[in-house]
Amino acid sequence: MFSPLIDELMSSLRCLPGVGPKSAQRMALHLLERDREGASRLAKALAESVDGVSECSRCRTLTEEEFCTICNNHRRLKSLLCVVETPADVLAIEQAGTYKGTYFVLHGHLSPIDGIGPSDLGLDQLQQLLSTGEVEEVIMATNPTIEGEATCHYISERAKKLQVTVSRIAQGVPLGGELEYIDGGTLAHAFSSRQKI
Amino acid sequence: MFSPLIDELMSSLRCLPGVGPKSAQRMALHLLERDREGASRLAKALAESVDGVSECSRCRTLTEEEFCTICNNHRRLKSLLCVVETPADVLAIEQAGTYKGTYFVLHGHLSPIDGIGPSDLGLDQLQQLLSTGEVEEVIMATNPTIEGEATCHYISERAKKLQVTVSRIAQGVPLGGELEYIDGGTLAHAFSSRQKI
Ligand SMILES: [Zn+2]
Ligand SMILES: [Zn+2]
Repeated sequence: MFSPLIDELMSSLRCLPGVGPKSAQRMALHLLERDREGASRLAKALAESVDGVSECSRCRTLTEEEFCTICNNHRRLKSLLCVVETPADVLAIEQAGTYKGTYFVLHGHLSPIDGIGPSDLGLDQLQQLLSTGEVEEVIMATNPTIEGEATCHYISERAKKLQVTVSRIAQGVPLGGELEYIDGGTLAHAFSSRQKI
Repeated sequence: MFSPLIDELMSSLRCLPGVGPKSAQRMALHLLERDREGASRLAKALAESVDGVSECSRCRTLTEEEFCTICNNHRRLKSLLCVVETPADVLAIEQAGTYKGTYFVLHGHLSPIDGIGPSDLGLDQLQQLLSTGEVEEVIMATNPTIEGEATCHYISERAKKLQVTVSRIAQGVPLGGELEYIDGGTLAHAFSSRQKI
């Protein structure tokens, strides 16, 4: 509509999740009309992140340092290791604010159909970490999906062989959720896993 | 949470309109985990746009060329000039798809309180364009707000002195709008501006 460069800006903004053509237009015009400083800052942050951000050598979460801020924090318990599928899961658990251990990020789950096997999830690295004896308990926090459960099962078996305690985060009805809006699978699980009070 | 570079990426994504802290986190992790190519493309488009995009020499809309694609299109009527406040207004009118003339973009409206006067809106350039005799009718499409009306009035007076026809886009109830949801000012205007059928 305007010119190739502006069209390209609008089109490239659509790589952002949740941004459709209308939002991309609004964003491009906003930046060019009212916030070129912000646009330059964002361009720089994107370029530097793409270049610099890699994985933590211990836990595989995203970081531009050798070790992430969590692994580097001596107040975090290295004896507790929470296994998650993505860095977004780390963020969600950190924001809940009660977990004091460290993490291991798989960057996915086992998926033979997509050709994703143990080595893609860093399971050799996990095995090595568990072999050091540093970790006393592995808390499995993969997603409660078929793939997440299969991945959980695979990892648990390997961890148990190394005499490491393995636990799974509890599944059931979410706090504050109303029963009528909760899916049948979750409800059924909540009933079969009911606890005496 | 993760590292300075990722924090900076999340924070700089918030320069985008409508992006709060949660969306910025989601966007940053999505780009770093799943679309680094998209992130690089966006970084490049942002940097090149900030450097290259300026204003069309005739109509002041955003473009990296001397003249925008609309002014450069010989099928667009140079005798019709639609005055709008922003490039986003140009986009909205173009997407409506019926206007065949050209535009003049003010990049704002008269606002003495904010120190925005005629020269900030390119009104000298507009005066020059109207003096060439190329434009036969100016269609005022500034916003139907107090500032937009004041700006419209100011420009109309100057255009009329140059013997150019001036019109104002119609104001009333929007097509498809339901009367019960339309504000009182619009309804009152629609009644006082009623037309015989
Ligand atoms: Zn780490
Ligand atoms: Zn132009």
